[in-house]
Amino acid sequence: MATQNRVFRLAARPVGLPKRSDWKFSEETLSDPAPGELLIKVLYISLDPAMRGWMNEMKTYVDPVKIGDVMRAIALGRVIASQDARFKEGDFVTGMFGIQEYAPVKGDHATKVDPSLASLPVYLSALGGTGMTAYFGLLEVGNPKPGETVVVSAAAGAVGSIAGQIAKIKGCRAVGIAGGPEKCRYIVDELGFDAAVDYKSEDVSQALAQRCPGGIDVYFDNVGGDILDIVLTKIRLHARIVICGAISQYNNTTPIKGPSNYLSLLINRSRMEGMLVFDFRDRYPEAIREMAGWIAQRKLKSREDIVSGLDTFPETFLKLFKGENVGKLILKVADP
Amino acid sequence: MATQNRVFRLAARPVGLPKRSDWKFSEETLSDPAPGELLIKVLYISLDPAMRGWMNEMKTYVDPVKIGDVMRAIALGRVIASQDARFKEGDFVTGMFGIQEYAPVKGDHATKVDPSLASLPVYLSALGGTGMTAYFGLLEVGNPKPGETVVVSAAAGAVGSIAGQIAKIKGCRAVGIAGGPEKCRYIVDELGFDAAVDYKSEDVSQALAQRCPGGIDVYFDNVGGDILDIVLTKIRLHARIVICGAISQYNNTTPIKGPSNYLSLLINRSRMEGMLVFDFRDRYPEAIREMAGWIAQRKLKSREDIVSGLDTFPETFLKLFKGENVGKLILKVADP
Repeated sequence: MATQNRVFRLAARPVGLPKRSDWKFSEETLSDPAPGELLIKVLYISLDPAMRGWMNEMKTYVDPVKIGDVMRAIALGRVIASQDARFKEGDFVTGMFGIQEYAPVKGDHATKVDPSLASLPVYLSALGGTGMTAYFGLLEVGNPKPGETVVVSAAAGAVGSIAGQIAKIKGCRAVGIAGGPEKCRYIVDELGFDAAVDYKSEDVSQALAQRCPGGIDVYFDNVGGDILDIVLTKIRLHARIVICGAISQYNNTTPIKGPSNYLSLLINRSRMEGMLVFDFRDRYPEAIREMAGWIAQRKLKSREDIVSGLDTFPETFLKLFKGENVGKLILKVADP
Repeated sequence: MATQNRVFRLAARPVGLPKRSDWKFSEETLSDPAPGELLIKVLYISLDPAMRGWMNEMKTYVDPVKIGDVMRAIALGRVIASQDARFKEGDFVTGMFGIQEYAPVKGDHATKVDPSLASLPVYLSALGGTGMTAYFGLLEVGNPKPGETVVVSAAAGAVGSIAGQIAKIKGCRAVGIAGGPEKCRYIVDELGFDAAVDYKSEDVSQALAQRCPGGIDVYFDNVGGDILDIVLTKIRLHARIVICGAISQYNNTTPIKGPSNYLSLLINRSRMEGMLVFDFRDRYPEAIREMAGWIAQRKLKSREDIVSGLDTFPETFLKLFKGENVGKLILKVADP
């Protein structure tokens, strides 16, 4: 029983913001799974800023997507054929399934999820790589203590919105930086941040000084660029800056802007440290248990921004870089 | 008994490299010490890159030197009059005595040194703030493990030369970056570094790749600027960058150059952390004991670059920024 697949393959290395022509959208025929393999019907695809980095030629923490390869992405789907005894038809699984309707993968590369514990998209959001990034980035690298001031950039985004809520759960003051009054209202009124800074309409330096009068103990950075540079001038002694991402810089066609105020690290005996969620893979189960508990107790809200239609992928992906999504951006490919 | 003093007072905030006219060199009359005070005859003055920062208007980790104040500097001298029972005439002491021939200070601000344990200038070098900076910066912030590769910039300078030697004592591979063949030969042949990179004649990126083929685990940075940026492209997973100074940037008249490759911290899950030696003040005695032991066992060499004549201060100070000193730059004011 051959399956007709529709798939986005990388066609070109983008310069600046990716264009539709940087991928080739094609119809292909899949054969049945070989022993040890599964065939997965993809339902939801996680759209993440990191995917932009994977499209460049340079190796970073993973190999780049090769020209001609299926565009890499984390996704959630349903097993429709299994040649691996650990999985049966109907199981829901997550993994690096890519931007396509059907994914043929080895059983070792799929992880079962329990649809009774949380709705399926949440497994790509608070209970997925996004939530794990916020959890381990904030708690293990930022190491916030009760009463400290935690500032989060891209605070209405997928990772930032969860990082700020975890800071509140841990007894910190949470201040979010976001673009526009709607996002700022959302993080304060809906998510319980103590304050917000609207980088589009406010002087960020003045606003941070006013909303963090004692200075910043932990900065969870998703954006890089000018905002990181401004935050460096507001840190307290022994501050921790978590470098989780730098979305302001991913589509640069000029060299990345380094933080010219980095000597504030010396003056304040502070640290700036990069984190990658994969390093904490062994501890995902404990984090998922704790996060699911917080969701059940309504201490943590997971919000998904779901756009339907595999074919909209190139344009939907750009929402991340235009600041158009609130919460976790997800592409819906099919009904469960 | 009034004492005639000669003193350098700050006259202007320098723009770029300090000029002689940025200080006023004047003769003044000192009265006898009041109760609780000492009068110290200054013998040796420590000349440190950090002094350039103290001349700027902006508060950093200490208040700036005010216009009209004695130029701040760490020094070593002999007590010539004491109104503090803890000190007697003839005692050798160190403290923030400033650029002058005689220093009237409170007894609380002087620390006795033992001239039988090491020669006097060594108390401003390996056994002074310089040595403490190398010791705690490398061991506490850099945290090198045996077998790791430690790279030190300004490696023939006061702090760098000691940091590299401590790395060797701790079983690491030490690679120094220095300017010119003489300094490079010195750190390898005299101090026992495993290799040197001559930033004046070599392509630093290629030279580091060749001399650190497995990458860099710890970078002890004294210079900032382009070299920090290049090192960021050579770090290994979980590397530690110690921000001790940024001498390439202290006389900038344009904004400081931030490290544009800082996202390597993310890719390599590495950290960059600032350090200030004063934070370790309580632990100086243990460090001095250990360092004095290494010197006695000839595992650690302290080299001083001593220039005579208080009146040469403005020009001698510039040696630091022109890369003209090897080892610890000290101004000799008088014979002991």
